[in-house]
Amino acid sequence: MPTRLPPLRQDFLKNGAHVYLRHLSVDCVIFGFHENQLKVLLLKWQNGPWCLPGGFVKKHESLQESATRTLRERTALKDLFLQQFFAFGDPSREKGKSKNEEFKNTWLADRFITIGYYALVEHSKVKPRPDVLSDECAWWDIDSVPSMVYDHHQILEKAIDALRIDLYSHPVGYNLLPRKFTMPELQRLYETILGKGIDRRNFQKKMLSLKILERLKERKTGGAHKAPYFYRFNLTQYKRALTVGWAGWF
Amino acid sequence: MPTRLPPLRQDFLKNGAHVYLRHLSVDCVIFGFHENQLKVLLLKWQNGPWCLPGGFVKKHESLQESATRTLRERTALKDLFLQQFFAFGDPSREKGKSKNEEFKNTWLADRFITIGYYALVEHSKVKPRPDVLSDECAWWDIDSVPSMVYDHHQILEKAIDALRIDLYSHPVGYNLLPRKFTMPELQRLYETILGKGIDRRNFQKKMLSLKILERLKERKTGGAHKAPYFYRFNLTQYKRALTVGWAGWF
Repeated sequence: MPTRLPPLRQDFLKNGAHVYLRHLSVDCVIFGFHENQLKVLLLKWQNGPWCLPGGFVKKHESLQESATRTLRERTALKDLFLQQFFAFGDPSREKGKSKNEEFKNTWLADRFITIGYYALVEHSKVKPRPDVLSDECAWWDIDSVPSMVYDHHQILEKAIDALRIDLYSHPVGYNLLPRKFTMPELQRLYETILGKGIDRRNFQKKMLSLKILERLKERKTGGAHKAPYFYRFNLTQYKRALTVGWAGWF
Repeated sequence: MPTRLPPLRQDFLKNGAHVYLRHLSVDCVIFGFHENQLKVLLLKWQNGPWCLPGGFVKKHESLQESATRTLRERTALKDLFLQQFFAFGDPSREKGKSKNEEFKNTWLADRFITIGYYALVEHSKVKPRPDVLSDECAWWDIDSVPSMVYDHHQILEKAIDALRIDLYSHPVGYNLLPRKFTMPELQRLYETILGKGIDRRNFQKKMLSLKILERLKERKTGGAHKAPYFYRFNLTQYKRALTVGWAGWF
């Protein structure tokens, strides 16, 4: 830790409690999907460990607004649909915090409950950059994330569970796939998120039964196999399912 | 409002902030299921409106512990599996609160973020009773709940959505049905929660594919139709699915 804090940081530690609610933070788990890889976006504290991009809740801000602003300020990411997935409130979740000399006698020394949000983005479409408090902002493969502060590993695990469970009740893919795509491409997206193979016939049958896909007349040519049809999402149905979950599961 | 507050209530208003975290509460949506009816348990503030049973988070308590304790203290309900479903953090969620003279200049006048929990119980098995702050504790049919304080209607709506979506990813029924039950009885439970009819063949096929049911040799006799088989839950599989969601959806 630096012996002399920069002015901005001093002010944040000293006066943050006038701007933000006590005891409350937000943490964002940003999943990146690109070429059948699932990644997560992490920040590195200056001279410190890696962490999820997180922040605090201003006195007149909603939780969703806090998460959106935090992400914009800390990573320069905008226009993501952030999905709240869990509030983490174990009193021992911030292990090692009491040893942080910089936080001593400040509002940051208190216990914090953090509200977790996640989003899934096509990671080549976004250009994250670190904020003034961070050394780095980088994508990590979800199977090989570095050591992280506090309970951020558990928050990540819970976000992966939430993302997988949401696959069973909500549509996914609109902002991850090209406008028209084939059934095998959609299947690979699901397999990547679930971390396992799926039976081709069951997948196709299931997907078509959900009534969010429209088959185009065009086929994709150039592969070794029989040219597969292109599909696109029916956006009205897709958005409806995003809001209410699958109405037609049974 | 009474002009003179009872001592316990005075102390709570004056000194609560020494015991509880600021800005944070928990609210419990307790669904009761009995004879194909879905109900919700509500409290009535003394001389005031109806509300969900809620409370505050002690300084060294986890959120889950707060919800469990709150429910026990306020309704005498114990041993429920409370499922966290959403954190409500709209800054305007507590409409009318600023007019409450009793809260003025106390920690309760602050803005509160509330963490919602729900549980589903066989309501004839539990004996709720109101706490000292409430006039009544009663089950209401979910289609005809009375006017409630703040955003409690929205919290209830969100809990119903969460319960329905959880049906698609998690098993339900173990503590709601008798130890052995028929497929039509299980289907009626699902239909009641979803608020709609389900095709009998699809339901049976789906349920059997989830591998949480064991068919017994015994059949239920006495009905007008062909005697249906009894089933019971395979508890190992059931509990696994409760934790990880359906592994075998595809």
